[in-house]
Amino acid sequence: MNEVVNCAAYSKGHRTANVELAEVHEVLKDANQFVWIGLHEPSEDILNQVQLEFGLHDLAVEDAQNAHQRPKAELYGDTLFVVLRTAQMNKEHHIEFGETHFFVGANFIVTIRHGSSVSYANVRTRCESTPHLLSKGQGFALYAVMDFIVDQYFPVIDELEEELQEIEDEVFKEKPSRATTEHIYQLKRELLEVKRAISPLIDISSRLMRFDIKCISEDTQPYFRDIYDHVIRINEVVDNTRELLNTALEANFSLISISQSDVSKKFAGWAAIIAVPTMIAGFYGMNFRFMPELDWRYGYPVVVGFTISICIIVYYFFRRSGWL
Amino acid sequence: MNEVVNCAAYSKGHRTANVELAEVHEVLKDANQFVWIGLHEPSEDILNQVQLEFGLHDLAVEDAQNAHQRPKAELYGDTLFVVLRTAQMNKEHHIEFGETHFFVGANFIVTIRHGSSVSYANVRTRCESTPHLLSKGQGFALYAVMDFIVDQYFPVIDELEEELQEIEDEVFKEKPSRATTEHIYQLKRELLEVKRAISPLIDISSRLMRFDIKCISEDTQPYFRDIYDHVIRINEVVDNTRELLNTALEANFSLISISQSDVSKKFAGWAAIIAVPTMIAGFYGMNFRFMPELDWRYGYPVVVGFTISICIIVYYFFRRSGWL
Amino acid sequence: MNEVVNCAAYSKGHRTANVELAEVHEVLKDANQFVWIGLHEPSEDILNQVQLEFGLHDLAVEDAQNAHQRPKAELYGDTLFVVLRTAQMNKEHHIEFGETHFFVGANFIVTIRHGSSVSYANVRTRCESTPHLLSKGQGFALYAVMDFIVDQYFPVIDELEEELQEIEDEVFKEKPSRATTEHIYQLKRELLEVKRAISPLIDISSRLMRFDIKCISEDTQPYFRDIYDHVIRINEVVDNTRELLNTALEANFSLISISQSDVSKKFAGWAAIIAVPTMIAGFYGMNFRFMPELDWRYGYPVVVGFTISICIIVYYFFRRSGWL
Amino acid sequence: MNEVVNCAAYSKGHRTANVELAEVHEVLKDANQFVWIGLHEPSEDILNQVQLEFGLHDLAVEDAQNAHQRPKAELYGDTLFVVLRTAQMNKEHHIEFGETHFFVGANFIVTIRHGSSVSYANVRTRCESTPHLLSKGQGFALYAVMDFIVDQYFPVIDELEEELQEIEDEVFKEKPSRATTEHIYQLKRELLEVKRAISPLIDISSRLMRFDIKCISEDTQPYFRDIYDHVIRINEVVDNTRELLNTALEANFSLISISQSDVSKKFAGWAAIIAVPTMIAGFYGMNFRFMPELDWRYGYPVVVGFTISICIIVYYFFRRSGWL
Amino acid sequence: MNEVVNCAAYSKGHRTANVELAEVHEVLKDANQFVWIGLHEPSEDILNQVQLEFGLHDLAVEDAQNAHQRPKAELYGDTLFVVLRTAQMNKEHHIEFGETHFFVGANFIVTIRHGSSVSYANVRTRCESTPHLLSKGQGFALYAVMDFIVDQYFPVIDELEEELQEIEDEVFKEKPSRATTEHIYQLKRELLEVKRAISPLIDISSRLMRFDIKCISEDTQPYFRDIYDHVIRINEVVDNTRELLNTALEANFSLISISQSDVSKKFAGWAAIIAVPTMIAGFYGMNFRFMPELDWRYGYPVVVGFTISICIIVYYFFRRSGWL
Repeated sequence: MNEVVNCAAYSKGHRTANVELAEVHEVLKDANQFVWIGLHEPSEDILNQVQLEFGLHDLAVEDAQNAHQRPKAELYGDTLFVVLRTAQMNKEHHIEFGETHFFVGANFIVTIRHGSSVSYANVRTRCESTPHLLSKGQGFALYAVMDFIVDQYFPVIDELEEELQEIEDEVFKEKPSRATTEHIYQLKRELLEVKRAISPLIDISSRLMRFDIKCISEDTQPYFRDIYDHVIRINEVVDNTRELLNTALEANFSLISISQSDVSKKFAGWAAIIAVPTMIAGFYGMNFRFMPELDWRYGYPVVVGFTISICIIVYYFFRRSGWL
Repeated sequence: MNEVVNCAAYSKGHRTANVELAEVHEVLKDANQFVWIGLHEPSEDILNQVQLEFGLHDLAVEDAQNAHQRPKAELYGDTLFVVLRTAQMNKEHHIEFGETHFFVGANFIVTIRHGSSVSYANVRTRCESTPHLLSKGQGFALYAVMDFIVDQYFPVIDELEEELQEIEDEVFKEKPSRATTEHIYQLKRELLEVKRAISPLIDISSRLMRFDIKCISEDTQPYFRDIYDHVIRINEVVDNTRELLNTALEANFSLISISQSDVSKKFAGWAAIIAVPTMIAGFYGMNFRFMPELDWRYGYPVVVGFTISICIIVYYFFRRSGWL
Repeated sequence: MNEVVNCAAYSKGHRTANVELAEVHEVLKDANQFVWIGLHEPSEDILNQVQLEFGLHDLAVEDAQNAHQRPKAELYGDTLFVVLRTAQMNKEHHIEFGETHFFVGANFIVTIRHGSSVSYANVRTRCESTPHLLSKGQGFALYAVMDFIVDQYFPVIDELEEELQEIEDEVFKEKPSRATTEHIYQLKRELLEVKRAISPLIDISSRLMRFDIKCISEDTQPYFRDIYDHVIRINEVVDNTRELLNTALEANFSLISISQSDVSKKFAGWAAIIAVPTMIAGFYGMNFRFMPELDWRYGYPVVVGFTISICIIVYYFFRRSGWL
Repeated sequence: MNEVVNCAAYSKGHRTANVELAEVHEVLKDANQFVWIGLHEPSEDILNQVQLEFGLHDLAVEDAQNAHQRPKAELYGDTLFVVLRTAQMNKEHHIEFGETHFFVGANFIVTIRHGSSVSYANVRTRCESTPHLLSKGQGFALYAVMDFIVDQYFPVIDELEEELQEIEDEVFKEKPSRATTEHIYQLKRELLEVKRAISPLIDISSRLMRFDIKCISEDTQPYFRDIYDHVIRINEVVDNTRELLNTALEANFSLISISQSDVSKKFAGWAAIIAVPTMIAGFYGMNFRFMPELDWRYGYPVVVGFTISICIIVYYFFRRSGWL
Repeated sequence: MNEVVNCAAYSKGHRTANVELAEVHEVLKDANQFVWIGLHEPSEDILNQVQLEFGLHDLAVEDAQNAHQRPKAELYGDTLFVVLRTAQMNKEHHIEFGETHFFVGANFIVTIRHGSSVSYANVRTRCESTPHLLSKGQGFALYAVMDFIVDQYFPVIDELEEELQEIEDEVFKEKPSRATTEHIYQLKRELLEVKRAISPLIDISSRLMRFDIKCISEDTQPYFRDIYDHVIRINEVVDNTRELLNTALEANFSLISISQSDVSKKFAGWAAIIAVPTMIAGFYGMNFRFMPELDWRYGYPVVVGFTISICIIVYYFFRRSGWL
């Protein structure tokens, strides 16, 4: 894929021209236009060019080069630098995280995708199809991509909630197993990762919707409140799932104990049923000279019958008290 | 049920006319009146009409169309958009949640019910019967419906407290069972859902009672403090129940262990009572040529009697130490 | 008991007259006086009369009629409405909660007692005996009753600390029992109830001591700081006890496990002591034709002696390793 | 010990005179001096005299009379009232708490010691040896004593950390015992007590170092930041120890379970080693007429040898799987 | 190593001269220069000299003499005093902590290293190679060293994450052991230590990046935001690891229980397999005169065969139910 995915100028919500990166400063002279550049894992060269065109701060560009930033929004002079983490489920039902960086200035926006993530071409197309909204400027473009990124978290948390559902089934319907415990642990790990990716967005979107940032027009602010709202909801689901998961872990533990107790009870019951005839047999195995029963004609069958009866009684006794 | 349940104009607290949705803008010209519209799962058409009549913001209307919002209060210009979650117990003792949205403006209020919830016709009737209160304007109508919604949570939390009571009985009076553990887990789940529905209301009602919102007259603010108070109480009960539930889970766990310990003790006791005669019988089953007891006339009954005595002693010994 | 327990006018700290409820508005005309009314579970009639005399807000009066409010302090115009929960130990060592409501205005204070609680006649008497303090006005009367209510929590938390002490003794000195676990749970429940009654007082008293409330003279504020201080202390003890209780629950659980382990060890020890002779006896019960020991003159006593020796050795072995 | 330990006037950092309590008001007339009074468990008489001399507030004096206050700093007009809890290890390695109260005014400081605590005579001497510091006024004297009190917490928390170390050794190196669990509980109790004594000091010292309090000169404020710093450190150690203690409690619990599991395994192993020969012996104890082995010349030694071999094999089998 | 590692004057980002400590005040007269002094465990003499040259506050110098401060940033007049904790892994994979103190004033910076830590010579060299950055003044030098210190935490937390990975493997792949539990505890301890070292840096760097501190030029502030960002990330990893560790501890505990349950099941299974033939053998060891089987020609092999068959059936039964 190309490093420079897209580079176009917009005026009053309409795409006016595709621009070469090197000519961007020409376009910027016209204050009624803004430039929207989409980069994908750009090389240092490209980034330096971008830095030159827009006069970006060294530290921000350094961050943009290295992925593995935490989500944040920083102002360098009048330029806003935003880092977001993207998430999507891959085919093996694991979460893949990526990173997207934004530079938003007086009349430009640059998006930089790192790692696994969907292209933002569709977002751009959708924006271009609603010129009355895109005419709000680069702030709206920022909103559109952020909204797209946040919305991709919803299938992810749906998947996590389903996994919790599976764990509940394992805990309450199946026998306690090592696999369940490990499953709980892995889900916890994933929840923490999603939490880390999404929770800084509460602060970021609330700042974008509240504070006075020159490069974002005032009538775009309600849109960031919309993102704020989605983020809060995702965050809530994550917290909720986490709390239920903790309870499931403890419930699992209780059930392991109960099932261990059941093992003991079953063992005790069967041990009794075997021990009683062994004891009786032992008695008639004694070598006393004078043991009248031994000489009885029906001594043997009577004792055997008696023993079996006792075993049956013991069996029903344990049955009734729920041990067997 | 009709989508437009009710649509009327009010002046000085009295209903002055039933209005057609399409003529609402006529009524709005008279600043001394306000319009109160009740919708029930409205179609997109109806909502678009409402949006046109009152000039509502796109984002708010989009939210109003989709249920599954979290409770919130947002200002779009001078129009207040409020989302609440309603709750009620169904016949199977499960909580059913619904959603109600409000648009409140300079001289109108629109309520939109989604999902399972009681009609607000009664609330309207009650408001109309106290014109001195309703004359405070659409802010009071907002209060009346919110109060009604919040009051419906009280039977719900009563039910949850009763369930906790049942769990306590199960934990402390009955034997530990898988069902109890699952019961605890399910109650925890329900508590979290109620918590999610009610806790954002603390912030919403506190904002309505404190801040300057044009469409809510100042003398209505103490009424929102009343709602705030109820919400705090519901929230407190939920937190309380949750903390007690956690303790119940741990107590349950302790009792499972004690009961497991009781199984071990009982088993040990009876094992001893059976093992001792088995051992003695084994001894007199030895084939030594010179074992004087074997030849004694009363050897057999003496040994049997001795064995029984030992068993009885062992039994009382275990009894006294509480193992049996 | 009378609904109107007391109704008197005070001037410069001295009781100047007993007033009829219906004539209170006469007394109120004199700005140098204030009226102090004590009610006990008043009927709706009485409350309406009081509302009329002092011009109280509907919502506050409605609250005052229903007990089961949470502690709070609310300003309705210039009138302060305060709700407190009272607590005392009954003879069965259970906590009984009551409720007291206050209306404090420009020159009046009304106290309304609900449920189990001590009369405030003594507080009034004590106030009357220190006219230089009571001359600070109705704010001081409010302080005096609140202080009295808060001070009644001290014996309650002493009792709770004693119960914790008992639980510690049960946990660490006695054997683990179901009763201990239930005891812990019940104490937790009581602590949560006290917490709910007392913790809102932190905020209430801090507001009374800090903010500008007309009906409370400035030189009364340090007195509310005194209440604040007591409330913080009670709250701290409750939190402390709660944390220790949680640790006690976990310690209890550890000790249950240790004691279960002791059962297993004892069982194992005695099982070994019985199993060894059983095994030996079994050997000499074999029917081989050529077993020289069987024909020895002293075979039997030697084997019995040998067996007993082995049992003793096994016993001491287990003793030394602490299993018996 | 005398109730009035010391009572002296200071000017420019030097002690100018020892004063009688009754003549303090004479000294106070000279604004360039301040009086430093040290009291030890004073009688009501003495306290009333002090109150008269300095015009102290009733509530503060009442508090000063009763120990058992929580640490706090309160302003009564221009007079600062501070309560601190002192701590020291006694010879039995238990923490003994005391209380010290301070009244600091325009040109005086009164320290009142209650309960177990070291005399502040040394602090005074040290102050007097650095007149350039003491010349900062009574605020510096306050700092000096507070610093002394806070520094006495360091040996206490060292002791607590050592106790944690001991508990770690008990948990990880020794066998699980009831004593360890109780030890953990007692340390938790002590930590909570220290926490209660020290954590209010964070707020107190931060207020003394930040806010404008007339009786404390501005250049003394960095000194209170020093105290703040020490308090934060003590508090951190307490929190740290508490968290490790919780983990130790859980680790202890895990190890109890493992050790219980070890008991079961050992028991199972030895049971098998005894059960196998018992079973074999039982077989050759059967009375079948035709059992060829019984008549073999070397049947007996062969069976005994065979049995012993099996026992040895079983033993090594369990050994290898770590059960024995 | 020398106590005074380095002492040089800088102007416009270039080193202009190496200075003797005693002549620093000469250099300070030129407002366009700043002095950068690097000390390593300096003696009291050196520190006093430094104090004299720069007019440092007594309390700060006292702190700088004693290591074992907690990380903090304090302003004494216009001089900033910063304390940081450094960390690095030693060869035995243990964390070694050191301490570095900074004095930053109008035109000087002093760094004081205590304990185990890498020299800052390289940092200085790197600064000198970017004069356009170093020309921002001593604030940039402060940033450079702080950044270096914070970056050294990244390998440390990588190591901690690896240890968590190891623990996960031990918990989920190996058998439960005492070593794992102790490993968890030790990692917890290390995490707490890193937390204590790093978390105060959140506050310190946020203060440096936000507030107006004279000795740090405004255009250095974004650099401290960079440090803030790194610290937040380290802190997050520590919190994350801690939460996963707690879950691992609980999972470990569940698995111990399951494995204990497995022991019980295995024991029960084999006990049954041995008990059944013992019982049968006991029966044919009875001495009844009339037991027809005993006289059968093939009684013995039939019984033995029957017994073995039963054992095999029992074995498969247990196998199928997963007990063996």
